[in-house]
Amino acid sequence: MAVYTEVTDEDLTAFLDQYELGQVTAFKGIAEGVENSNYILHTTTGSYILTLYEKRVRAEDLPYFVGLMEHLAGHGIDCPVPITGRDGGALRELCGRPAAIVSFLDGLSPRRARPEHCRLLGAAMARMHLAGAGFKMRRENALSLPGWRPLFESSAARAHEVQAGLAEALDSELAYLEANWPKDLPEGVIHADLFPDNVFFLGGRLSGIIDFYFACNDFFAYDLATCLNAWCFEPDDSFNVTKARLLLQSYRQVRPFSQAELEALPLLARGSALRFLLTRLYDWLHHPEGALVEPKDPLEYWKKLGFHQRARGPGDYGLD
Amino acid sequence: MAVYTEVTDEDLTAFLDQYELGQVTAFKGIAEGVENSNYILHTTTGSYILTLYEKRVRAEDLPYFVGLMEHLAGHGIDCPVPITGRDGGALRELCGRPAAIVSFLDGLSPRRARPEHCRLLGAAMARMHLAGAGFKMRRENALSLPGWRPLFESSAARAHEVQAGLAEALDSELAYLEANWPKDLPEGVIHADLFPDNVFFLGGRLSGIIDFYFACNDFFAYDLATCLNAWCFEPDDSFNVTKARLLLQSYRQVRPFSQAELEALPLLARGSALRFLLTRLYDWLHHPEGALVEPKDPLEYWKKLGFHQRARGPGDYGLD
Repeated sequence: MAVYTEVTDEDLTAFLDQYELGQVTAFKGIAEGVENSNYILHTTTGSYILTLYEKRVRAEDLPYFVGLMEHLAGHGIDCPVPITGRDGGALRELCGRPAAIVSFLDGLSPRRARPEHCRLLGAAMARMHLAGAGFKMRRENALSLPGWRPLFESSAARAHEVQAGLAEALDSELAYLEANWPKDLPEGVIHADLFPDNVFFLGGRLSGIIDFYFACNDFFAYDLATCLNAWCFEPDDSFNVTKARLLLQSYRQVRPFSQAELEALPLLARGSALRFLLTRLYDWLHHPEGALVEPKDPLEYWKKLGFHQRARGPGDYGLD
Repeated sequence: MAVYTEVTDEDLTAFLDQYELGQVTAFKGIAEGVENSNYILHTTTGSYILTLYEKRVRAEDLPYFVGLMEHLAGHGIDCPVPITGRDGGALRELCGRPAAIVSFLDGLSPRRARPEHCRLLGAAMARMHLAGAGFKMRRENALSLPGWRPLFESSAARAHEVQAGLAEALDSELAYLEANWPKDLPEGVIHADLFPDNVFFLGGRLSGIIDFYFACNDFFAYDLATCLNAWCFEPDDSFNVTKARLLLQSYRQVRPFSQAELEALPLLARGSALRFLLTRLYDWLHHPEGALVEPKDPLEYWKKLGFHQRARGPGDYGLD
């Protein structure tokens, strides 16, 4: 829920003069994404999303994100298409911030994922992984293993405020992951934040994937692990193995995964759970008191982490 | 900037089953209004706004607001049209809150009003005042004279935190207004919150007036006074008499006002400045520390109040 930068009608008019999108008819800040300011833009040629990139997104990463959306859209993936201006560029400046206009994607994000959503997601994610193959740019995953310990250390001293003994438990989990993190799984471009609010469905199909601002080069199976966490647990924290099976089976029908990837899933899911636990813990401990945006509960991911710690193998995720 | 209530895709689908709006294609929370949760809704039949009324709006007032929009729209005023469901009603419940769908209005709110905006506003406000004549319901202005002293008393003890001596000065202003507030000016339905963010312009015309959730029965000239405050001061707190003249002259070309109304303007403008000063002061003193939504500066209205206290008559507003 955002809109941090206010764009005046004069700013907008001058900005849109650099495009050929027709006349603007409406412009409203939308409560989408927490990192950037997003506006829905109606013009005489259609609907668009205008994004101003706020300080949590590094400007030097933007050509990767925008280039990736262009690449994926050009390869048949339903994702926002960056709109180029008269100068041929898609990335420019508005109100002192980097900004871009992308196409508007129809569809609704499921508040609670159903098994059918997971089945559609698996296939779409696999197609996205394959489509990323020819993308020439590269971006490290800033929130993978090397990033976790500094993040942990920025919250460790106060972790007990969230749960007694949490710092010690996280320290030990980190040590385990550092010792066992895989080195040579198949990799490519991953989304890295494929939560239900970043996926749209419409009329029984997956109509779009948005918010590529954590995208990076990492293990494909790490994207799967993140989705197991984000899509396959029920509100009571139980793991829905049916959803997991549909996700993984539909994925591997499009991009078969190796035995090594399959076996690494429990470990990658532990890592991904820890990653979201750590960012949530940081936000929980550092958000201004009384802020309108309630930080998300880090302990949700503590419970998910526990499930993966106890998993004995791929069978626990519905695969034989 | 709002969206307090999250509406799931299942909630939305069940809600829309009560309407004949076609299939939903997109649904996004928008950062509009501070009192309610607002969503932009795209369906196969067009664009709409879905509003969930949050606790700051009294449920018993909703039939007045919704009925008024229906009435005004039916009389040619460019305002949101409440959409009726299959049962013929426009007001129903969603996620435990009263909710309504209204038509989507094209246009942009000016961040900084230009003289031409003021000219268009005056005429549109007068047309709205005339169009309200046949509206049968009645709602007192809860934020007029009788409401100000209780509001003042809820902030008086801490008013010095904002400015030394503020409580005493406000007390004395209140006493003056209580002694001199007019009793028999022409009245009818007024908007009562006609700030630039509630008015849309498009292609050189005023394309819509929104947010009728302070509308009430009160002096017509009080709406004018509120607009003098909201539209005719510059960012440096100076009063732009050209804008005021355009506002008032274009108004009276549509609805000529009486000498009594004209002479009451400075006093009504003091009252309206005090009203917004008091609600801003309350929000300033009572907002949660570090909240994302910065409260508006109450002293902006202290300066506007000072201008009207010094005004000698309608000539100071550009009229002879």
